[in-house]
Amino acid sequence: MSDVARLAGVSIKTVSRVVNNEPSVHTETAAKVLAAIERLGFRRNLGARNLRRGSSSGIIGLVLEDVANPFYSGLTRAVEEIARATGRHVLTGSSDEDQDRERELTLEFCARRVDGLIMIPAGERHGYLVPEMQAGTPVVFVDRPAGDIVADTVLVDNIGGAAAAVTHLAAHGHRKIGFLGDAEEIFTARERLRGFREGCGNAGIPFDPRLVAMGPHTQEGITAIVREFVLGPTGATALVSGNNRITVNVVRAIAGLPRRPALVGFDDFELADLLDPPVTVVAHDADALGSAAANLLMARLDGDTSAPKRQTLPVRLVPRGSGETPPP
Amino acid sequence: MSDVARLAGVSIKTVSRVVNNEPSVHTETAAKVLAAIERLGFRRNLGARNLRRGSSSGIIGLVLEDVANPFYSGLTRAVEEIARATGRHVLTGSSDEDQDRERELTLEFCARRVDGLIMIPAGERHGYLVPEMQAGTPVVFVDRPAGDIVADTVLVDNIGGAAAAVTHLAAHGHRKIGFLGDAEEIFTARERLRGFREGCGNAGIPFDPRLVAMGPHTQEGITAIVREFVLGPTGATALVSGNNRITVNVVRAIAGLPRRPALVGFDDFELADLLDPPVTVVAHDADALGSAAANLLMARLDGDTSAPKRQTLPVRLVPRGSGETPPP
Repeated sequence: MSDVARLAGVSIKTVSRVVNNEPSVHTETAAKVLAAIERLGFRRNLGARNLRRGSSSGIIGLVLEDVANPFYSGLTRAVEEIARATGRHVLTGSSDEDQDRERELTLEFCARRVDGLIMIPAGERHGYLVPEMQAGTPVVFVDRPAGDIVADTVLVDNIGGAAAAVTHLAAHGHRKIGFLGDAEEIFTARERLRGFREGCGNAGIPFDPRLVAMGPHTQEGITAIVREFVLGPTGATALVSGNNRITVNVVRAIAGLPRRPALVGFDDFELADLLDPPVTVVAHDADALGSAAANLLMARLDGDTSAPKRQTLPVRLVPRGSGETPPP
Repeated sequence: MSDVARLAGVSIKTVSRVVNNEPSVHTETAAKVLAAIERLGFRRNLGARNLRRGSSSGIIGLVLEDVANPFYSGLTRAVEEIARATGRHVLTGSSDEDQDRERELTLEFCARRVDGLIMIPAGERHGYLVPEMQAGTPVVFVDRPAGDIVADTVLVDNIGGAAAAVTHLAAHGHRKIGFLGDAEEIFTARERLRGFREGCGNAGIPFDPRLVAMGPHTQEGITAIVREFVLGPTGATALVSGNNRITVNVVRAIAGLPRRPALVGFDDFELADLLDPPVTVVAHDADALGSAAANLLMARLDGDTSAPKRQTLPVRLVPRGSGETPPP
């Protein structure tokens, strides 16, 4: 503003009057100020209006693991819809499961004065968010909880879902069941492994650590693991895959095997019903996850100051064929 | 700023000095100003810094048809990567193929002073963008051109790709080929229909308008059309589907038929290789489309003032099985 005043040869007060549309400024002076504003790129914009009216930028920051993962695109859309209903837009960014990148992205979003944040956290240290939260930026964690702070969180029933997958396979006669999960650093991966063990326990199946492979995985790695599980000494007749990406890789791996194990995947995915055999999944709704998180955030922006909430959304087993074949 | 001055009981000039970290302010006065700033939410933030240093918000606006469509999530990621390399973030919004919504979203993004815009336009009237472009906001159209203004544009070779699909099917002996396209209001749908006709012409196949169905489509509608094309008097032995969504619906429709027509789909999609039969597609790279558009935008932001460019990215036919079966 002082640059504008200098260029126009007027006082800052005069610039302020022109910008605020106060009537007390001479037309010629106002024109000089406006020309200076134009020249310096200091146009009347939302940024300026936000500064005047308080802290709303009309932007929600959404930190994802990878915006290209179809699972997150449904979630993003759901957040966008709810943001839109309150006149807001969504700034997205991918952390790539990198804790430093998550922090960097998040703090940049905060520096851009987002109204609130929805995060699928990559890391488990979120103390860096405390000053932002204290300054009034609400944060909702989704899909995974915050590591070391208490915050609003929306999760899905990972343990119950993975246990249900095992129960389903056991009901079809399987006793040797392999589990391919994501990296153990990831909350959902740990929870689903816990659910897998719980399901084995419930079905009276002794837990065999040789039948567990946690990520990160590549297609080649998964192909090798599936061969080892199914054709090696463990002789798995069924598999549980820990997320949509792993499931797709497992389906590719199974297609090349002399005998196909039964399969239940965690996460639904497009075209699962068109594969051969159609893939039985533990489904949960990315839209519902996004909507729940966005609604929680909006409530905070509307002044809800109650204690942090944790919601756990239900999952459901969708039998389609791959999980209903008996062992050979 | 005048609110801050009023609350702190100082002049606007003093507030400005504190905000700009000028040394001439008494510590006690500065503390008063900072407290007032904190209270009013007028914190030192990027918005304010942007006003001071010019017009960069560090944000690229990306207007999509639907952020939940997997085709766009790859594009979004590519834009995000390039934006990130220049310290920028991406604000996304879905137009839902609604021209008014596109305009509303775009102007809201402009009001938030995005550094530049990448748009998959829903409509064909973009005069509303001229003032923004004149004010220095570069705009790149991607996947579809601007309707009535000249602007940077990145397209794929829709005509060549659709013609290649017909040529491929004709080479496998098909003479009765149906085309299911998107709504004719959509540029890519019209271009692909043109390519389909061109391909028929090249192969010496008389164009039969009864074998063309343009959208918008539902799954039920597509099922009825496919039945009519294949089992009705036109007796199509092969189909070309006009985009990834339509292809998936056609695959579902074909699965229920007594005899399966050959199929080539425009746009590749995840799992196409795992379907039965694997789907032959005209592939183009959503990442490449996003990267090309983002690179064009960055060049403009770096000062490239040359005439608007139009890039057309190549497509390639990926034979996987569904397009290589002969007619019965």
